[in-house]
Amino acid sequence: MPENPLHTLMNPKSIAIVGASNNPLKMGTMQALSALKDGYSGKLYPIHPQEKTVIGLKAFASPEDLPETPDLGMIVVPQAHVFPLMESFGRIGTKRIIVCTAGFKEVGAEGKRLETKLNETAARWGIRFVGPNCMGILNSAISLNLTVMRFDGRPGLLGIASQSGTYITQTLAYLRNRGIRLSKAISTGNEANIDLIEAMSYLGEDEQSRAVALYVESIRDGQRFIEEARKITPYKPVFAQYVGGSTAGARAGLSHTGAMAGPDFLYDGIFKQAGIIRVHSIEDLYAHGWTAATQPPLQGNRIAVITHSGGPGTAMANAAEQGGLTVPTLSAEVQNQIRPYIPPHASSANPVDLTFNMDTDQMTIHIPEILLKSGEIDGLIIHGPMRSGWMKEVYPHLSMLFNNLPLEDFLANFPNNLAAAMALPAKYKLPLLICSFLDRSDNFVETYEDNNIPVFDAPEKTARAMLSLLRHKEIRGRKAFSRPAPPPPSPEAQKIIRNAVAAGQKALDEAAGKRILALYGIPVAREMLVFSSDEATVAAAAIGYPVALKACDWQIMHKSGKGLIALNLRTEEDLQAAFASIRRAAGRDVPILVQEMLAGGRELVVGMTRFPGFDPCILFGLGGIFTEILKDNTLRLAPLSAADAEEMLDDIKAKAILDGIRGMPAADRTALAAIIQSLGFIALNHNEIAEIDLNPVILTGANPVVADALFVLKG
Amino acid sequence: MPENPLHTLMNPKSIAIVGASNNPLKMGTMQALSALKDGYSGKLYPIHPQEKTVIGLKAFASPEDLPETPDLGMIVVPQAHVFPLMESFGRIGTKRIIVCTAGFKEVGAEGKRLETKLNETAARWGIRFVGPNCMGILNSAISLNLTVMRFDGRPGLLGIASQSGTYITQTLAYLRNRGIRLSKAISTGNEANIDLIEAMSYLGEDEQSRAVALYVESIRDGQRFIEEARKITPYKPVFAQYVGGSTAGARAGLSHTGAMAGPDFLYDGIFKQAGIIRVHSIEDLYAHGWTAATQPPLQGNRIAVITHSGGPGTAMANAAEQGGLTVPTLSAEVQNQIRPYIPPHASSANPVDLTFNMDTDQMTIHIPEILLKSGEIDGLIIHGPMRSGWMKEVYPHLSMLFNNLPLEDFLANFPNNLAAAMALPAKYKLPLLICSFLDRSDNFVETYEDNNIPVFDAPEKTARAMLSLLRHKEIRGRKAFSRPAPPPPSPEAQKIIRNAVAAGQKALDEAAGKRILALYGIPVAREMLVFSSDEATVAAAAIGYPVALKACDWQIMHKSGKGLIALNLRTEEDLQAAFASIRRAAGRDVPILVQEMLAGGRELVVGMTRFPGFDPCILFGLGGIFTEILKDNTLRLAPLSAADAEEMLDDIKAKAILDGIRGMPAADRTALAAIIQSLGFIALNHNEIAEIDLNPVILTGANPVVADALFVLKG
Repeated sequence: MPENPLHTLMNPKSIAIVGASNNPLKMGTMQALSALKDGYSGKLYPIHPQEKTVIGLKAFASPEDLPETPDLGMIVVPQAHVFPLMESFGRIGTKRIIVCTAGFKEVGAEGKRLETKLNETAARWGIRFVGPNCMGILNSAISLNLTVMRFDGRPGLLGIASQSGTYITQTLAYLRNRGIRLSKAISTGNEANIDLIEAMSYLGEDEQSRAVALYVESIRDGQRFIEEARKITPYKPVFAQYVGGSTAGARAGLSHTGAMAGPDFLYDGIFKQAGIIRVHSIEDLYAHGWTAATQPPLQGNRIAVITHSGGPGTAMANAAEQGGLTVPTLSAEVQNQIRPYIPPHASSANPVDLTFNMDTDQMTIHIPEILLKSGEIDGLIIHGPMRSGWMKEVYPHLSMLFNNLPLEDFLANFPNNLAAAMALPAKYKLPLLICSFLDRSDNFVETYEDNNIPVFDAPEKTARAMLSLLRHKEIRGRKAFSRPAPPPPSPEAQKIIRNAVAAGQKALDEAAGKRILALYGIPVAREMLVFSSDEATVAAAAIGYPVALKACDWQIMHKSGKGLIALNLRTEEDLQAAFASIRRAAGRDVPILVQEMLAGGRELVVGMTRFPGFDPCILFGLGGIFTEILKDNTLRLAPLSAADAEEMLDDIKAKAILDGIRGMPAADRTALAAIIQSLGFIALNHNEIAEIDLNPVILTGANPVVADALFVLKG
Repeated sequence: MPENPLHTLMNPKSIAIVGASNNPLKMGTMQALSALKDGYSGKLYPIHPQEKTVIGLKAFASPEDLPETPDLGMIVVPQAHVFPLMESFGRIGTKRIIVCTAGFKEVGAEGKRLETKLNETAARWGIRFVGPNCMGILNSAISLNLTVMRFDGRPGLLGIASQSGTYITQTLAYLRNRGIRLSKAISTGNEANIDLIEAMSYLGEDEQSRAVALYVESIRDGQRFIEEARKITPYKPVFAQYVGGSTAGARAGLSHTGAMAGPDFLYDGIFKQAGIIRVHSIEDLYAHGWTAATQPPLQGNRIAVITHSGGPGTAMANAAEQGGLTVPTLSAEVQNQIRPYIPPHASSANPVDLTFNMDTDQMTIHIPEILLKSGEIDGLIIHGPMRSGWMKEVYPHLSMLFNNLPLEDFLANFPNNLAAAMALPAKYKLPLLICSFLDRSDNFVETYEDNNIPVFDAPEKTARAMLSLLRHKEIRGRKAFSRPAPPPPSPEAQKIIRNAVAAGQKALDEAAGKRILALYGIPVAREMLVFSSDEATVAAAAIGYPVALKACDWQIMHKSGKGLIALNLRTEEDLQAAFASIRRAAGRDVPILVQEMLAGGRELVVGMTRFPGFDPCILFGLGGIFTEILKDNTLRLAPLSAADAEEMLDDIKAKAILDGIRGMPAADRTALAAIIQSLGFIALNHNEIAEIDLNPVILTGANPVVADALFVLKG
C-alpha cells in the first residue's frame, strides 16, 4: 500500500508560500503570518515576483530561485497563475502542494475541466496536492498553522478533516473558548487529488489524533470510504456530520426503494456500515469528537451522576437513559461510603445529590473516588464543580461583609485541591465528563479542560457526549468486515435480462424477476404463470387453495389498489371470477400469475437502488402498506458480509417485528440476511438492473418468502 | 376570578427578610444583599433576633416590631422557626410570603405533614406564599432580585417559572453571557400554596413577559394546567422542559395502554394539548424562549438564509427544512437586486452566499433589507456578522503590517453601521436570527443581543430556534378550546359495571365491554355471544360468513397467540373445528363470541388510562401487532373537544395510514375523533373502569369499527 501523501504534506521541514505579500488583507499573507507567528520552526519561503521581503522574510521571485527544494508548496494566487506554479514546483522536485486558489470545479464546467488538467499536471510531476479551493491545514504537533486564523499552538488530540474550510478556521476561537484542542486539521476543498477519504485514513493512522471528526458534504467513492473507515473505526472513534440532501431527498424513482433512498438516508446507512458515529450539529462534531479523543473507552453502560442540584442531575440521568446508558442504584456498601459527605436527606442512590455547598473536595475528589473505584460504574458525570467563576458572580455583593477585601485575596482563602481532582481519571481509567454553567473564567472549568476532561454547558449535552462513547463501545464490538465475493453470474438470469432489454422493456414482469431471485437462492412464493382461465384452474389445483392471482406484465409495475390482484381465493368459482375481473381491470388479456397465499402477518421490504459512488445500495425495512407510511428502512452498500446484513435487521425502529411476538415465532435472521446479501450479488452481477423492490417479503412463520418482486431496468 | 397572588407578591413596595444576617455565606444574607445591591428601590427590613444592623440596614427583632406592614415577607430560617414567623406576619397583616426554608415535603412523610400545616396556617391569615424549599424570585421591571446570585438589573422579556431553583440562580451568569434577559423569574419550590400553574398564569398575564418558559418536574392538576395554558398559548408562546420518567416509563399495567403511557409520554401529550412547545434541553428552554420573546410572530414558513460560508449556510437550510420551514429559491427580480453585492460565482438563490469578506454592510444591511422587503420570505437567518471579535483573533498576526498600531485604533478605521443593521427588524417586523461562532467580545454579537436579536453559536441551533416560531404559528392556528360536557351516564352501562364489580371481576368480558361502547355510540363489530357449538352455527349464519370466533371471558384479557381466536372462518365445518379448538385451548367450556370478519388492512388502537392528576387519559395510535412494536401513540387528557380529538389523528408518525392509500379510502376522521371523544366520556362517567384497550379498531373502508375491547376494572 502506498504511503498516505498527507504524512509528508502535514510535516514539511520547509514551506514555500506563493500569494503572501505585505498586503495584510490577502488570504496568502494571513496564512504566511500564521506559519510565521504560531510556532512553526521549519523554513518559510515567501515567493513574490516583485517584493524583496514579505512579512519580514526574504522573498524569492519563483520556486526556481529558492535555495532548497521545499517539502511543501502553498499556492494562494489568482487561478491563471496556478498552472505555471505547479510546473515550477514540479521542476524543482517539490512533491506536496496545497492549492487554496478557488475558481475550479465549484464554478462550473470550465472550472471542472481546469481541475482535471491541474490533476494531470500534478501527476506528471509525481505531485500530490490538497485543494483547490481550500483553506489550508493545521498540525499542532509541529505548531504549523497554514490557515488565516490564529492558533494558540497547544497540541490537541482531535483530528478533523472538513469539506468546509469554515470549520477549521472561523471556529478556532470557538474551540479555544471551549477547551477543545485539535491535533491536525485539513480543509480538503474540491478534492481534485487528495480527498476526504485519504484525510480520514491519515488521521486514522496518526497517533496524536485519538479521535477523528469529519465534516462531509459529499463522498465520491462509497466503497473505498467504507473500507478505509472500517480499518479505523474498530479502534479509533470517527464522527461525521453530513448535511444536505433534505430538499433533494425525494428522488423520482420507479421503485419505492428508489423514491425513499434520498441522500440523507443514504449517508445515514453508509456511516453505520462504516462504523462512523453520525452527529447532527457542528457543536456535537467537535464536542463528541473531543470527548472520544480525551476519554478512555467506555467498557459498559453503567454511569453515575454526581450533582449539587436536582434539576441538572435528573436531566443528565434522563438523557443518558434515553440513549441506552443506565444510572443504576448504587449498592448499600457504596452508598454508606458516600453518606458522610452529603446531608442527611440528600440522595446517595444515584444520581448522588450533594445539595448546594461550596466544598468542592466532596464533589470533585471524595465522592468521585468512591464511585470510580466501586466497580459498580463504567463512567462518571459531575454537574457543578466551580469556584472562582462563581465567586466572581457573588463576591460583588458579599465584599462589604469581608471589609471589601479584593476578590483575588478572598479567593486565596479557598485552597482548591485541583491537582487531586484532575488525577482521578488517569488513576481509574474511566470516562469522566463535567457539566458547568460557567465558562473558562472559572478555575475549575479551565483546569478540567486543560487536563483533557471535557466540560459542557448543559446537562443534556454532557449525557449525550457520554452516549457517543457508548456508541463507540457498540462499534468496537462489531464483527470484522471481510468483503464477500459474489457468486458467478447466473447465465439464465443474464439471458432473461438480455431478452428484456432487447425487447425494449423498462422492467421485468414479476415472474421473470422471481425466477432470477430463485436462481440466486432467494425463497419466492410457489407460483405459475398462466395465459387462460383453464390454465389457472390447473395451476391453482397444483399449488393448492387458497391462492392469489396477479396480473403479470412488465408494464404493470404497481398493482395494488387497481383491481389487478385478488387474494385468498378458496374455490375454483372464486378463482374464475377473479381471473375475469383482473383481465377486465387490465383492459386486455394480460398473463396472470397464480400464487400460493402466504400466511403470516408480518411484511418486510428488501430493495436495491444505485447512487453515483454508491452502487449498488440495498434497503431493508417494514413492508406492505407501511413501506410508504412509516419509511422505516435502512440502507447499505453492497457487497455485504452476512454480519453487515444482520446489522440491518436491528437498524429499523420496528425491529421487534422480527422477535417472537403474539404467538408468532422469531424470524429466521440468517435467512433474512441471506436475502439481503443475495440481492446485492444480483445487483453486482447484473448491471442492467436499475432498481429492485421485493415487497412484501412475508414471514411465513419464521421463514421469509418473497411474495412480490419488481425489477426496473436501466435505460 | 380571584386576582393571581403573584401580582402583589412580585411587586412589593416593602420587604421583610428573616434569615439575613451579617454572615456572608448564609443564603438569607445573600438574598438580602441581592435585594439591596441590584437596584430595588422599595423598603428593605432585615428581621434578626440579636443584631442591630444587618448588611448595613437597621434590623428588627420580629415582624411585630416593624414600622409598617411589609407587602412581602421572606423566610430563610431553620424549619422550626417558620411557623411562628408565618403567624407573626399573619398578625401584622402581611399577605404574601416566600418560604425558602427546606425540610418539608421533599424529606418525607413528616415533612409533608408540616407542609399541610403550613398551608393551613397561611390560609387562616389569608396569606398566599411561594415555597417552601425554593430559591426566591426576580422581577426585572422593578430591579428586584431575591435570589442568591447577582442580577445585572437589565429588564428582560422572557418570564420563567421553574421547579428547580438552579435554573433561576446558577444560570444567571450563563444567560448574561448569551444576551438572554429575563423579565420575571419564579422558583416555585414545593408548591405548597402557589404552584407552577399560577406562576404560568401570572407570566401569561404579565405584559413585560413576551414569552413564558417552564421547567417542569411534576404537574399535579392536569385539567387546570391545560385550561390555564390554553388561555395563554394562542397569544403568547409558552415553552416547557420536562425531564424525568424515563426509567419509570414502563408501568406495570393490565392493558397495553397502561403499559405504554409512561410519564414522559404523558407530558408530551399534555403539552401538545395545552399548546405548549416542548423543548428537550435547558439550553433550548432559554434560547427558544428568548427567541419567541424578542421576535415578531412568524407568519409563514418561508425563510431566507444569508451566509458568508457554504457549510453553515447548508446546515441552517437543512435543519430548517427538516422541521417544516422552506428555503425557497428567490425570484429572478430579487436575485438581480442581490447580485451587485456578491461575487460573480456566489449564489443569490437562497441560501444567499456572499463568500467570505469583511464588508459587514452587505451582510447586515443591504442584502437583509432586499430580502425583508421582498415579500418572498417570512423570516431571515444570517450567519457570520462579525467585526471586533474577529479582528481580535487575527490582528495579533497582522499588526506588524500596520506599524504595530494598537488594535483599538485599527478598529476605529472600520465604521460599523450597527444602528442601521439593528433598525431593520423593527422596520419590517419579520423574525431575524443571527449565527456567529464568536461571543459577546465581538461588537456585532453584543449589539445584536442588546437589541433583542438573538445570536446562536451554531447554525443548527439558529434554524431550530426559527422552527420554534413555526411551532407557535401552528399553535396560534388551533381551534379555540371549549370543554365539552359528557352525556349523562348510561344506566345499562352502570349496571353492567356494578354487576362485574360485585362479582369480583378484574375486567369485563369482551361482549360486555362492547355493549358499553355501543351504548355510547361507538361502532363495534356485529357479534353474538354463544355457549354451544349449535348456537355458534346459528349465530354465524345470522351474521354471515366469514366470521371470527373468540373466547369471551373476563379472565382472558389477552387472547392473541394462545389459540383463543380463530379468524376468517368461511364454512360451518371450519366454524365447528375452530369452536372445539378454542375450547380445548381454554381448557374449559368458555363462552365464545361469534363476530363478523372485518375487512380492511388498517388497524388502530384507542385506549384509556388514568394517572394521578391526569384522569382520564385517552390514547390513540397504530393498532394490531404494531401497538407494541412501534409504540406510535399519542395521549390526551379527557374531556376532549372534537378538535382536540382530531389533532390526535395527526400526531402519530404513521398518520398517513389515515389517508387514501393503496386503493383504500381516506379514514372518516370525524368518526374516529368521535370514538376518541366518547371513550373519554365513558371514563369520566364510569370511574370504576381503570383502563380500556380498543385494539384493533379496524378501518373497514373509511369507517372505524372496534374489533376487540378490553375493560380493566379498578380494585
